[in-house]
Amino acid sequence: MLTKNHVKLITSLSQKKFRVQHQLFVVEGVKGVQEFLNSTFELYQLFSIEAIFEADTILVSEMELQKISSLKTPNTALALFKIPKQNEIKGSGLTLALDDVRDPGNLGTIIRLCDWFGINNLVCTKSTVDCYNSKVVQATMGSLARVDIQYVDLEAYIKAYPHDVFGTFMDGESIYSESLPDEGVIVMGNEANGVSESMEKLVTKKLSIPRFGNLQTTESLNVATATAIVLSEFKRK
Amino acid sequence: MLTKNHVKLITSLSQKKFRVQHQLFVVEGVKGVQEFLNSTFELYQLFSIEAIFEADTILVSEMELQKISSLKTPNTALALFKIPKQNEIKGSGLTLALDDVRDPGNLGTIIRLCDWFGINNLVCTKSTVDCYNSKVVQATMGSLARVDIQYVDLEAYIKAYPHDVFGTFMDGESIYSESLPDEGVIVMGNEANGVSESMEKLVTKKLSIPRFGNLQTTESLNVATATAIVLSEFKRK
Repeated sequence: MLTKNHVKLITSLSQKKFRVQHQLFVVEGVKGVQEFLNSTFELYQLFSIEAIFEADTILVSEMELQKISSLKTPNTALALFKIPKQNEIKGSGLTLALDDVRDPGNLGTIIRLCDWFGINNLVCTKSTVDCYNSKVVQATMGSLARVDIQYVDLEAYIKAYPHDVFGTFMDGESIYSESLPDEGVIVMGNEANGVSESMEKLVTKKLSIPRFGNLQTTESLNVATATAIVLSEFKRK
Repeated sequence: MLTKNHVKLITSLSQKKFRVQHQLFVVEGVKGVQEFLNSTFELYQLFSIEAIFEADTILVSEMELQKISSLKTPNTALALFKIPKQNEIKGSGLTLALDDVRDPGNLGTIIRLCDWFGINNLVCTKSTVDCYNSKVVQATMGSLARVDIQYVDLEAYIKAYPHDVFGTFMDGESIYSESLPDEGVIVMGNEANGVSESMEKLVTKKLSIPRFGNLQTTESLNVATATAIVLSEFKRK
């Protein structure tokens, strides 16, 4: 049975401070819930209008699901999972670093890209949008369960990093002509401002994605599509 | 002065049938409006809370702008532009073909990618989301003014197309190892279903974007990030 306390807890989790306090986050929809049940995440509570999961389920009516869902058209199930302890950052391979990515859809898409391209480590500034924000969780389509994400003091992390630090800039070397290594950290910047000045100083190899269209305009690529191209280039050889 | 007829016209343009009837679409925000003013699009009416444009401006209050805007926080200006006549499809170069892309944000991102990579032609099935939908216009960040978009009977178009037809599939040849031409049409599919079966039969070269992560999962890339990688591969040589 859905209680008032359930409703209060679940709706509070739309705010980061309550996710941090309770160490819980929300997953919605049959497919998403199933992906997280199959992952290493630990289930806390599962609400569904049908008993279709192997896990313990609190059955709710459609109207009750509507009450706890953040979606206009809720899809059958909603579950609370425990936020795992941050793993230690693995030392080897490629690391993607996000310098204040703010849009939940962009972060979700970037997490899917890390999953696709087998990126071991995703590190983010503390001002990057929270990966347990429900819009991020929805946009990851389950990849969140397969990618390690850390929120760190990014400047300190990069300063201590022993290999090359890459970033994309208008005046960088064409990413198509550079020989790209298997070890390195790739910094991607904020939607409006790109890589911050303090971070730019720590970049050891400036790259650019060449533009083939009309060169008079100053448009940039969206950070998620730029990340797609950059990761593809690092991995393609 | 903002009249009741203005409000009625502008709010009606959130629906495609009224955009088609009036042959008008909405652009919001100072930057977007300025991009379209600088383009070949023809201005119909411009509403702004400040007289900051060179074009004729109907001055409105913030409350009036709120009334005609589709945004939660409207940004200074809103303009109506005329929908141009469809140009003839140019014969040469790369063509991107969209097979029922439904999400306005995805179409907007793909239009920006065409602008970036200098793709001359973007052709879409008639069931692809309308490029004059206000969410698409917002997401293009002005690129809509620089990319020719046609809604066509895509099967008939592809059947008559004289060069190779490319598409991405799980069982295609790695896009990283294929030699990719300067002429061709690239078909990208619907968010949920990919390229349709009828279109798949018309594809002459099946490509795939290799996956480097955990291979047991069946996730796909988002259509906009897949398009970013595919266009980058065609253009990079």
